[in-house]
Amino acid sequence: MDLETYLSSRLALVNHALERLIPSGEAYPQVIHQAMRYSTFAGGKRLRPILTLAAAEAVGGDPERALPTACALEMIHTYSLIHDDLPAMDNDDFRRGIPTCHKAYGEAMAILAGDALLTRAFEVLSGNAELPGVSPEVALRVIREVAEAAGSLGLIAGQVVDIQSEGVPVSTETLRYIHEHKTGVLFKTAVRSGALISMASEKKLVALTDYAGYLGLAFQITDDILDVEGTIEKLGKSVGSDEKKLKATYPALFGLARSKELAGEAVAQAISSLEGLGAPAEPLREMARYLLARDH
Amino acid sequence: MDLETYLSSRLALVNHALERLIPSGEAYPQVIHQAMRYSTFAGGKRLRPILTLAAAEAVGGDPERALPTACALEMIHTYSLIHDDLPAMDNDDFRRGIPTCHKAYGEAMAILAGDALLTRAFEVLSGNAELPGVSPEVALRVIREVAEAAGSLGLIAGQVVDIQSEGVPVSTETLRYIHEHKTGVLFKTAVRSGALISMASEKKLVALTDYAGYLGLAFQITDDILDVEGTIEKLGKSVGSDEKKLKATYPALFGLARSKELAGEAVAQAISSLEGLGAPAEPLREMARYLLARDH
Repeated sequence: MDLETYLSSRLALVNHALERLIPSGEAYPQVIHQAMRYSTFAGGKRLRPILTLAAAEAVGGDPERALPTACALEMIHTYSLIHDDLPAMDNDDFRRGIPTCHKAYGEAMAILAGDALLTRAFEVLSGNAELPGVSPEVALRVIREVAEAAGSLGLIAGQVVDIQSEGVPVSTETLRYIHEHKTGVLFKTAVRSGALISMASEKKLVALTDYAGYLGLAFQITDDILDVEGTIEKLGKSVGSDEKKLKATYPALFGLARSKELAGEAVAQAISSLEGLGAPAEPLREMARYLLARDH
Repeated sequence: MDLETYLSSRLALVNHALERLIPSGEAYPQVIHQAMRYSTFAGGKRLRPILTLAAAEAVGGDPERALPTACALEMIHTYSLIHDDLPAMDNDDFRRGIPTCHKAYGEAMAILAGDALLTRAFEVLSGNAELPGVSPEVALRVIREVAEAAGSLGLIAGQVVDIQSEGVPVSTETLRYIHEHKTGVLFKTAVRSGALISMASEKKLVALTDYAGYLGLAFQITDDILDVEGTIEKLGKSVGSDEKKLKATYPALFGLARSKELAGEAVAQAISSLEGLGAPAEPLREMARYLLARDH
């Protein structure tokens, strides 16, 4: 299979559906819908929703049926980025090369746009039972799993501990906690809900959950590595100076070489988790390999 | 019936259930759960969740079955207060006589506590189908209605237009829009979801929706009146000076006397909406009368 073609066709599916699922910028009050769309269509790779679609395919499901769920996960991802970027949080002025939501629309509108995307995600998920072949029980289970993943013991817990860890020495355990909660839980939920909505067997669900756990880990390690390598290249400063900032990263705790090994091991484990799933899981395997090779 | 006894017994039910439904302040990461609890247990009157329970009773349902739904609506109400109080929004330092969430826990934690309460509300609603007599279809319908009410065309729309209206002249139409969305939609959803979860007939649902619409209107008018009368009493300043602030209030647009008439008319219409519901709707009628007489 050609991964580039696969990813771009899935990205188009997701973008087209998001276009339909978020109220138009003409809907009153216009500014909130424009802010929601500004951040949603800021050029994300759509990794989480594509994982949802690929997981649906991996268990023999129809990716179209998983599309609203995929979009709901992307809305939740976008809401978390908007709120994380706020001055009171990470205070980032730019993301993906353009001003962050609060820089473009002001803080009040950015807070509300995040709130609205989170809320809209659950509204979209509540409509899943109207799709052919999706039972109301399954639709409710997806809502429960997504809410748990996004809540104060999941995604939000990761952000809380990340904020608390700024400027203080961080243990390996805390680093793992932050990554698992800021990245891992939403990866897992993206994959699981694609499988759930496709009526996957419990056995396949377990295999996919393992895959997603290793994939999330690999993603975070390579993210940390790219941060360091990008920094060295751009600023000419040593890895040591990053370590002094006490930022919770894999290279800071394990060194660059060992971090690369760890990322490779995680990808190998992700792929071997899918052994029982055969050819339909090939896009998921390719996505794991792609993750390791990415340079941005 | 004795309304005071009714309200205090229902308030105890709601508080007890909220205590159970929000993770303990010992749950890691503690600070987020402590912040969620700080604002949730800051002494609210629990008007919305009590409306949910009273609506369940009005259609012959078991208030216990409506309790998780009632609590979910209170969580959404609390999240909206936490976010509305933020410096970027209304910038309020105190609410109900104690420091607002961001004053007590910092802005980052207040934003996240609001996010977490909103998310937890949907998680709680996803569990409704496990209650005896609640079908998964009804549980999904409640989630859809609550998400619509809380979203960018409901509650959030009200806050957006309220922010946009600060310091500019506001038409009667805009005032109505703000009130209907900031207060009305959540009142309506509180009442409707109590009825839905109790398997109310479509006819009763319509009557209760009308009731809630008038009640929300009456609530907002009396709120505006109390603001003005409180202000006159406390600061000795005239109604005219409030009008100069161009704040979107009923007294500013209609004068105090006409506003009181309008509140009375709305309460009368709320009560007459319940004509077909007989004795079980008495708590809802009493609550409407109580609203008109309140002085805080």
